[in-house]
Amino acid sequence: VCGMEWYGYAALGVLTAFLSFLMDLSVAKLLNAHQWLYMKLEGNSLLQFFCWTLYPACLCAVGSTFSHDICPFSTGSGIPEVRTMLVGFEMPHYLSVTHLFTKYVGLICTLAAGSTVFLGKVGPFVHLSTMVGAYLSNLCTLVQVDKKENALREMLVVAAGVGVASCFGAPVSGVLFSVEVMSSHFALKQYVPCFFSAACGALTFRLFAVWSGDGETLQALFKTDFPAALPFYPLEILLFAFLGLVCGAVSCCYLFCHRRMLKFTKTNSVLAKLLTTEKGLYAGTVAFLLACVTFPHFFGRYMASKFTMKQLLTSLMDSSQWGSQTHNASVSEPLSKWSSPESPFYFSLTFFLLMKMWLLVVACSLPVPAGYFMPVFLYGAALGRLVGEGAAYVFSWTSINPGGYALAGAAAYSGAVTHTLSPALLAVEVTGQFSHAVPALVAALLANAVARSRRRPSFYDALSIGK
Amino acid sequence: VCGMEWYGYAALGVLTAFLSFLMDLSVAKLLNAHQWLYMKLEGNSLLQFFCWTLYPACLCAVGSTFSHDICPFSTGSGIPEVRTMLVGFEMPHYLSVTHLFTKYVGLICTLAAGSTVFLGKVGPFVHLSTMVGAYLSNLCTLVQVDKKENALREMLVVAAGVGVASCFGAPVSGVLFSVEVMSSHFALKQYVPCFFSAACGALTFRLFAVWSGDGETLQALFKTDFPAALPFYPLEILLFAFLGLVCGAVSCCYLFCHRRMLKFTKTNSVLAKLLTTEKGLYAGTVAFLLACVTFPHFFGRYMASKFTMKQLLTSLMDSSQWGSQTHNASVSEPLSKWSSPESPFYFSLTFFLLMKMWLLVVACSLPVPAGYFMPVFLYGAALGRLVGEGAAYVFSWTSINPGGYALAGAAAYSGAVTHTLSPALLAVEVTGQFSHAVPALVAALLANAVARSRRRPSFYDALSIGK
Repeated sequence: VCGMEWYGYAALGVLTAFLSFLMDLSVAKLLNAHQWLYMKLEGNSLLQFFCWTLYPACLCAVGSTFSHDICPFSTGSGIPEVRTMLVGFEMPHYLSVTHLFTKYVGLICTLAAGSTVFLGKVGPFVHLSTMVGAYLSNLCTLVQVDKKENALREMLVVAAGVGVASCFGAPVSGVLFSVEVMSSHFALKQYVPCFFSAACGALTFRLFAVWSGDGETLQALFKTDFPAALPFYPLEILLFAFLGLVCGAVSCCYLFCHRRMLKFTKTNSVLAKLLTTEKGLYAGTVAFLLACVTFPHFFGRYMASKFTMKQLLTSLMDSSQWGSQTHNASVSEPLSKWSSPESPFYFSLTFFLLMKMWLLVVACSLPVPAGYFMPVFLYGAALGRLVGEGAAYVFSWTSINPGGYALAGAAAYSGAVTHTLSPALLAVEVTGQFSHAVPALVAALLANAVARSRRRPSFYDALSIGK
Repeated sequence: VCGMEWYGYAALGVLTAFLSFLMDLSVAKLLNAHQWLYMKLEGNSLLQFFCWTLYPACLCAVGSTFSHDICPFSTGSGIPEVRTMLVGFEMPHYLSVTHLFTKYVGLICTLAAGSTVFLGKVGPFVHLSTMVGAYLSNLCTLVQVDKKENALREMLVVAAGVGVASCFGAPVSGVLFSVEVMSSHFALKQYVPCFFSAACGALTFRLFAVWSGDGETLQALFKTDFPAALPFYPLEILLFAFLGLVCGAVSCCYLFCHRRMLKFTKTNSVLAKLLTTEKGLYAGTVAFLLACVTFPHFFGRYMASKFTMKQLLTSLMDSSQWGSQTHNASVSEPLSKWSSPESPFYFSLTFFLLMKMWLLVVACSLPVPAGYFMPVFLYGAALGRLVGEGAAYVFSWTSINPGGYALAGAAAYSGAVTHTLSPALLAVEVTGQFSHAVPALVAALLANAVARSRRRPSFYDALSIGK
């Protein structure tokens, strides 16, 4: 009844989701192994230090060398390349199966280094899904008798949408995010294939989670439990707007540092030479330094460095007020990791924000396959949490939910860095609660207004210019 | 700092939301007056009959005559006209302030006729907001020194998005719906203004509701209380897919009837003459007939005709199983209206679906300003409810939530009729719960696949061709 390409779209969604699930599984195993070893060495700080630092350093060095040796251009996020291909440039070596394999293995190494390296998987997954799409498109062309024109390009557009969707199990915002990032004009003809493929991907991704015993039913990835009856007071909209402006300002600072860092790695002769010839060495050294800073017996205890990325995000979106808990005897699980007797959580959050700003800029220079969206999203959540806790302290007679500010902050900050609005929807979709949709949208709009003023380039623009 | 047009966009959102709120308020007053009178006449069936039938008949006759006399082209949905304008045709008389006023008053009359006439406000509101936009654009051009080209067109694109957003207080899906309905290519440059204006509109609309004492905080328009822990079992996806196919098939039938009716009113000489010269008479007669059929002491008792549109939708999205309640002594509020001793709710729902199919086709021929989205959305919810209750009966050992099927059915059916996907997001946004986003998207995709097969025209295409 329907054309060959629809089977291709469905297969694309299912395959990408399968890859995503398999990656999550392997990364979780590797992270667990690290945690287990670290716990076993309890009592011996020196051995713990080596375990903490050498594990990510080795992973990054291996991932970097491996991807450099097999496919030298497989490092980085991949979004600038996909963008270029969608505009119409043909870059067949960027779509080969070897490249797919290299990027996949390299990305597992990066993610297994965990929250010390603090990088994500969104960008490379967009690239991975376009590679799967190109492969499927070739298969379709082999089978089909009457060849369609532009079949490859259409498949690539669809694949770009599927990548984000099967990363987070969020079909709607996944498609919208890649539309915003990728293209300046979007043909509505490709709307339905995109959503079809993304729905297949998100469904498969979540069903895998159910079948592997991770949950009883299809759930949001970072499920929250905000109170449904009174999510926020109407006047809190002003606070959310203020949060949006703060996020916009901080994002300008981050983008400036990132551009300077990109320029510095190009112009500094030592670094530039190191990055072309000795990628593995550079990656290992930088990862070692990052791990030194986040070592739990050193600065790490002030920045909850024992959490994985997922745990960090879940803890920041906690709906209870941490400020009011410090007087009580019972302290909730997230707060106990974020505070210690010598450092209240206010200090930890501020320290986390200050340190991660430059750590993230350094981490972005790592020559490994890595996504830069998730860390930015997390950073925004921490920023939002701090503002939310502050608001809860100032207006202590009301029951302000700081988790909602974390959600809006994540949406606003990641939206400002990438110059998009869809993170507002993404934040709602990955947490599975709609109550904060309007605050998140308001915050994202204002953050975008600040970030886009004076024609500043977005994060991906800066990467594209750098290439 | 920012250009004049941004103030225009904000004003557009706020003004449209204000119009929408004012309309809801007046309609509620008029509906209450009708209900009060009907209750007072309890015991005298004949007087009740006249009250039930003459009230909507008069309203429709007045609305039709009024809009015909002042602005003869203000009838109908307005979406085909807005589409034509966005393509590039200039139709200044469709954007005048007189037209705005006429359409506004006419729409109040139609909506006040309530669920007997069974028409909505989405389409005309898109048109109303474009008129507001055109007016504001003129104001901007007067004030601004350096005139921008295409300012009017940009404002119209934004305004089309705002209309839906401030109708339902749903900014994200509002913009996406109008993008899908209006244009074949969409420039991302207009993305941010659209969302900015829609967020302003949705915020204002909901804040008005808070300030008028309708709710304690910003809430979804049709708030549901589905269980958050286990919204549905993974295998229920198959049932949702089946529901999507059913919705697609029924929508084809509805669209076929609608096209035949459009053709019939053009070709039949008596009707065509009546519709050109005696619009008021025709509208009054048809509304009278519709009201006769839905009279609560006649067929109306089998189709819950005492409910307003909003109450109908809320009752259908009820999360409790009606089937299991019939054995208990305590019966929930929605069920008591949908069933009576002589007619179980299965019969009522089926009867409702069969009758409303042709009643709605007839109502669409009324020469009054009216929207055709809401009735279709409601019809889909009833269809979904029926399938959901059937599923709950067959799989009686599980705790299936028929309200979720109503939500997915509404999304799938309205998506199929308009050939769009965004109703899936709209259904999630107006109910304020994200748990059923993926089922709704799956159902909407399959319904669209059925409805779009063999290049059938959508509802709005049929209207455009008819003009």
